[in-house]
Amino acid sequence: MSSDISGFPEFLPQEQIAFNKILNKIQLQFEMFGFIPMDTPAVERLSTLLAKGNDNEIYGIYRVGDENGQKNLGLRFDLTVPFARYVVSKSGQLIFPHRRYQISPVWRGERPQSGRYRQFYQCDIDIIGNGELALAHDAEIVYLIAKTLKSIGVPDFVTQINNRKILCGFLKNIISEKIVPEVVRIIDKSEKISPNEFTGSLETIGMSAEGIGALLDFMGNGEKYSDPSDTIPWLRSIANNEEFSLGVSELNEIIQLLKSWGLEDKFIKISVKLARGLNYYTGTVFETTVNEMEDLGSIAGGGRYDNLTSILSSNKKFPGVGASIGVSRLVPKLFEKGLLSCDKATPAELLVTVQNREFLSSYLKIADDFRNIGVKTEVYLQDKSLGNQMAYANRRGFSYALIANDEELRDGIVILRNLWTKKQITVNINHITKDIWGAFSES
Amino acid sequence: MSSDISGFPEFLPQEQIAFNKILNKIQLQFEMFGFIPMDTPAVERLSTLLAKGNDNEIYGIYRVGDENGQKNLGLRFDLTVPFARYVVSKSGQLIFPHRRYQISPVWRGERPQSGRYRQFYQCDIDIIGNGELALAHDAEIVYLIAKTLKSIGVPDFVTQINNRKILCGFLKNIISEKIVPEVVRIIDKSEKISPNEFTGSLETIGMSAEGIGALLDFMGNGEKYSDPSDTIPWLRSIANNEEFSLGVSELNEIIQLLKSWGLEDKFIKISVKLARGLNYYTGTVFETTVNEMEDLGSIAGGGRYDNLTSILSSNKKFPGVGASIGVSRLVPKLFEKGLLSCDKATPAELLVTVQNREFLSSYLKIADDFRNIGVKTEVYLQDKSLGNQMAYANRRGFSYALIANDEELRDGIVILRNLWTKKQITVNINHITKDIWGAFSES
Repeated sequence: MSSDISGFPEFLPQEQIAFNKILNKIQLQFEMFGFIPMDTPAVERLSTLLAKGNDNEIYGIYRVGDENGQKNLGLRFDLTVPFARYVVSKSGQLIFPHRRYQISPVWRGERPQSGRYRQFYQCDIDIIGNGELALAHDAEIVYLIAKTLKSIGVPDFVTQINNRKILCGFLKNIISEKIVPEVVRIIDKSEKISPNEFTGSLETIGMSAEGIGALLDFMGNGEKYSDPSDTIPWLRSIANNEEFSLGVSELNEIIQLLKSWGLEDKFIKISVKLARGLNYYTGTVFETTVNEMEDLGSIAGGGRYDNLTSILSSNKKFPGVGASIGVSRLVPKLFEKGLLSCDKATPAELLVTVQNREFLSSYLKIADDFRNIGVKTEVYLQDKSLGNQMAYANRRGFSYALIANDEELRDGIVILRNLWTKKQITVNINHITKDIWGAFSES
Repeated sequence: MSSDISGFPEFLPQEQIAFNKILNKIQLQFEMFGFIPMDTPAVERLSTLLAKGNDNEIYGIYRVGDENGQKNLGLRFDLTVPFARYVVSKSGQLIFPHRRYQISPVWRGERPQSGRYRQFYQCDIDIIGNGELALAHDAEIVYLIAKTLKSIGVPDFVTQINNRKILCGFLKNIISEKIVPEVVRIIDKSEKISPNEFTGSLETIGMSAEGIGALLDFMGNGEKYSDPSDTIPWLRSIANNEEFSLGVSELNEIIQLLKSWGLEDKFIKISVKLARGLNYYTGTVFETTVNEMEDLGSIAGGGRYDNLTSILSSNKKFPGVGASIGVSRLVPKLFEKGLLSCDKATPAELLVTVQNREFLSSYLKIADDFRNIGVKTEVYLQDKSLGNQMAYANRRGFSYALIANDEELRDGIVILRNLWTKKQITVNINHITKDIWGAFSES
């Protein structure tokens, strides 16, 4: 993957084909569960973007010929804000529960030298209710993300799962309610800072040594259990307020649904210290990492929120649950680890070689016959030797070549060659069928 | 199609699904001919964009938190400039001829009040040679565009085709060479201005009355022929320099290839006055309009150029031929004319209704069984009556519903209902197969 402008990566053909294959598989899984495609414009009002975003990372746009003109538009930095804006403005025309996916680039105004992407793809799914949304949807989202990651060949991964009500319920018993959000934010960063920095941050916002001790015990004890069937009873035994208990019961329901769905234990782990940074999560939160790719950080994550549109100060209530897959960071890693091959610089399978250009129209028609049975086919139209054409076929990564000289064309036969196995068959051009192609291409 | 910010249209779910269907069909046709997917970043250097674009229509970007910072990047306004930049920077890693497609949005800094799109999709294909490119590729592009438009259900359309060498060769015999490009630009606009304005513009740049008369005769005579087999002999009879003759012979070769490919006559018309605005075309030019949708203007067009990268002042030579389909204007018209239906607000076919939530895991597993045989399936997870669930299925546009109560689940059977024909069958949940689904869904 190379890039002309730092932070704006782009692919070579063979990489793009492999990347698209991943996006297509993700899209297929999302649609398999009835998620509806969505494609909002790249541009939103700055006022909308600033409701959630940080102005440092937002790109505004202006007309180059009118530099001092109005500057009230910018590029989306995530797919959640556009979705919230869409739901608010179109709620009367949507059917609820509304489930949508969006696979689109987002833009972040990073400083060029930071080495981070300034454009990258996000793959988002969300299910939104109008006023209410059943808890089972949380399990559906977690399950679908796991299924999707499996379908694109991500090796051993684990989804850590928690419920904000557990964390917040626990905290409300040891600290004053108004500093709970701040403590949650510090807990969210706990993996990225040293233990001293962690306790220091908690002290700074006024947490007592006793409180910090209780929190550290809670977080530490939670790590002792590797199986949800051990974690849940422990949580039940220490739950000491309604919010905490509700969180445990929600978490348990989701775990049970995932089990009954057949999701293997190794993919799921309860983590009582998982917080997720965003303020608007109110229940289930989860985050997926890949074993042996720790440096990647989380490749997917999401959670339940009471009101999608609260970020836009809408007074309607749209509870939802959603998740996002960070495909732009994941795919280069799959290349690197050899888990995703990129050796085909064409989406086509078959190259029709041309030996006698006087018969060009015959070659073109034969190519169409193959296309008609669903075979992606290119005709080599440059005036080059057969050797050159075969070299082109190999370099580009075609699997099959069709070879015929004028005599063979007159006799109505052509040769199909498998470029990997070197196996070849002779085919009558009046009998090109799916069955013949199937038998040949599988041999 | 509604829009929150003027000029930035977005779709409702059922429209988006229909629009995506069109994009998928276009993509499939492009890949059927071996075109390689390409996806450049939305952002290019302003210096690159300004090499071809007009600063009035280019959007620059800036970091909102750093308004006085560097402003050297902007959003692409077409897909040709990014492609040229890509080829120049990666030519050493590409295999030639290189054929790529890109289906992506572009941005134009139109004034909000102009009522034009400020973001819209383009579907571009180009074939680029390194130093040389056979003329047959021009026919391939014209053929593929026609095939693609047919595949997406565009009704009677006609592709007007010409060769710049004919027009330029003709002009060079009656006017001085240095005003030829300017005259070509005026001819390109001739359909949009009055005859008086047309001759006035030609006089202004110094063309004599005699010259204008000769040009008008040429343009008028060209219109008399409806069939290429009449136009070509006429052109041959009046060709009076080498460039003109070469243009006629190129045009004829392309027409012959299109004929031998089986493209019906009604789809192709030679238009000697077709110029296409862009400077960089040097041979074949073509433009497609839809009969009975004249107000749409051209929905596709393209041509041959001697050097893609000349716009970036590269000294390498990459001759090519390409075309673009203006899908963002076309699709709303297809909706309007009833040529594209948008009555499904889900990509899924089957809704699994849930009558007893204690059996949720059974319903979820059955849904997975259908997904495993390729049926896109949603499970209704809200706690509602069966009547409510069926109403949801109908409103959303599901074709089929699965219905089962706890007794039926215990007996291992479920009912599949076709929501259009009301026909239904009973299926054993241990025998959900492609054959059973195929027989049911086709009945």
